[in-house]
Amino acid sequence: MTDAKEFLQRLDDAAQRTEAALDRLLASEPLRGEIARPARLLAAMRYASLGGGKRLRPFLAIESARLFGVEGEWPLRVGCALEMVHCYSLAHDDLPAMDDDDLRRGRPTTHKAFDEATAILAGDGLLTYAFDVLADEATHADAQARAKLVLALARAAGLGGMVGGQALDLEAESAARSLSQEEILTLQAMKTGALLRFAVDAGAILGHASAAETQALSRYGAALGAAFQVADDILDAAGDTAALGKRAGKDAERGKATLVSLLGLDGAIARRDRLVEEAIAALDATGFGPATQVLKDAAVFVAARKN
Amino acid sequence: MTDAKEFLQRLDDAAQRTEAALDRLLASEPLRGEIARPARLLAAMRYASLGGGKRLRPFLAIESARLFGVEGEWPLRVGCALEMVHCYSLAHDDLPAMDDDDLRRGRPTTHKAFDEATAILAGDGLLTYAFDVLADEATHADAQARAKLVLALARAAGLGGMVGGQALDLEAESAARSLSQEEILTLQAMKTGALLRFAVDAGAILGHASAAETQALSRYGAALGAAFQVADDILDAAGDTAALGKRAGKDAERGKATLVSLLGLDGAIARRDRLVEEAIAALDATGFGPATQVLKDAAVFVAARKN
Repeated sequence: MTDAKEFLQRLDDAAQRTEAALDRLLASEPLRGEIARPARLLAAMRYASLGGGKRLRPFLAIESARLFGVEGEWPLRVGCALEMVHCYSLAHDDLPAMDDDDLRRGRPTTHKAFDEATAILAGDGLLTYAFDVLADEATHADAQARAKLVLALARAAGLGGMVGGQALDLEAESAARSLSQEEILTLQAMKTGALLRFAVDAGAILGHASAAETQALSRYGAALGAAFQVADDILDAAGDTAALGKRAGKDAERGKATLVSLLGLDGAIARRDRLVEEAIAALDATGFGPATQVLKDAAVFVAARKN
Repeated sequence: MTDAKEFLQRLDDAAQRTEAALDRLLASEPLRGEIARPARLLAAMRYASLGGGKRLRPFLAIESARLFGVEGEWPLRVGCALEMVHCYSLAHDDLPAMDDDDLRRGRPTTHKAFDEATAILAGDGLLTYAFDVLADEATHADAQARAKLVLALARAAGLGGMVGGQALDLEAESAARSLSQEEILTLQAMKTGALLRFAVDAGAILGHASAAETQALSRYGAALGAAFQVADDILDAAGDTAALGKRAGKDAERGKATLVSLLGLDGAIARRDRLVEEAIAALDATGFGPATQVLKDAAVFVAARKN
């Protein structure tokens, strides 16, 4: 493992670059083909996406692309698209009709700071903008790569990925029975795993990776995503609201089956650590050697994080 | 003008092909890269997008592409993407936090037939799927064309287009003052015009149109979109709920400024007819000659429609 301080520095650098790039993309000036950018909607989109979060997904895209020597604006824009999708999903999930949360990253949720209609539209606007960003020539010189990014993000974020995972999650809460372990794993792979995996896959697409490289990175992304989610269950069971920036203990309160309720805290921790090992082994299979260290550190970080 | 019966036949053919293609796209089998398609979410996406509507946007894309000799699966898939975006916007706009409508195309709205959370997610899923469809190789052999379609749809549907228009519309309803004519025109160009215009532009993108052809078609699309919206205002003022399949007279009831309230019924009709003439003149400038007749008929149809 590299120096923990150095890893956190790189994570923070990526977060700051992402924040600045999102700020530029969410400027008041309309792009070519846009008619106008309504001020209140834009303000809500900025509120929902700026000023918060670890920006883990952009970091993964940036570091995955770096393995292929791709740096600069391209992976940064992919990172912005990822955050747009991630933040839209939070704004919609927080709505009264969904998880009904008032607090997110220690601030009022978007529908609390604005209103429900604006939060719905801000989410719609961010989701749409993510595909704009990926399809734009500024994201890659090769249109084939841009089309691949759009397709992969849509598959990860849509019906068969993130949106589907949220639908399953809501169904599980209202169902009379608890989910089986297999059902929880599917739900988590869809709701959280798919987008994290896309972040890593995006680096491979940007770098025109070989099939073997793509496959190894994708295995890393899948293991990392699964580790992230079991760590989330552990945090919800053991964490505190102040550190999380959102309410802790929600899962138990709602009688929701999680990996902690199914495997016990020790079992969940063992699973988490095994997934980190899998993620690291997958990186060793890429053939990139020491260059993968920062992504290995990311897997450890995701598992051990406090919020 | 061609035979009205023939025009309606072509419109209906396009609608039936679009319905069948949407039905295939919204099958229960996951696509490559999708994990699973949750049954209830899929049912809501199907409910929101199948079994209704004139499918005007797919028709425009199909007929615009035909000018360039592009027929078959490509424009049909663009039509499906258009309907996914159009239908997602209806599902979200009908929500209690937005327009709070119970009736759409003579049926309960999606959140009435399912629930609010599912209607929000079904909309999110349809919007995401639209970009999936456009980016897929099955929509065009040339990745550059696919990336252009994605970019143009995102600009038409997002912050600076449809979503922004809906935000302005909601603001106008809660504002103390009425909108000026210029503000109404901007709102309408964003909320409805941008997507109709994209439908026409998409044909030009699919057909690798020249700059002059693209420009002329885009002028047609803009005039048609504006004619559509003034016709909408006229219908809401003069139409009846049974023919519309949604509540008539909503605008006046809400004290909302429309082109009818600003220009009077006769003034609105005069504007509508002028826009149809503009649309037809733009088609004459494309150089495609008699092949543009069906699109001319479409402008007349849009202006004269009863729902």
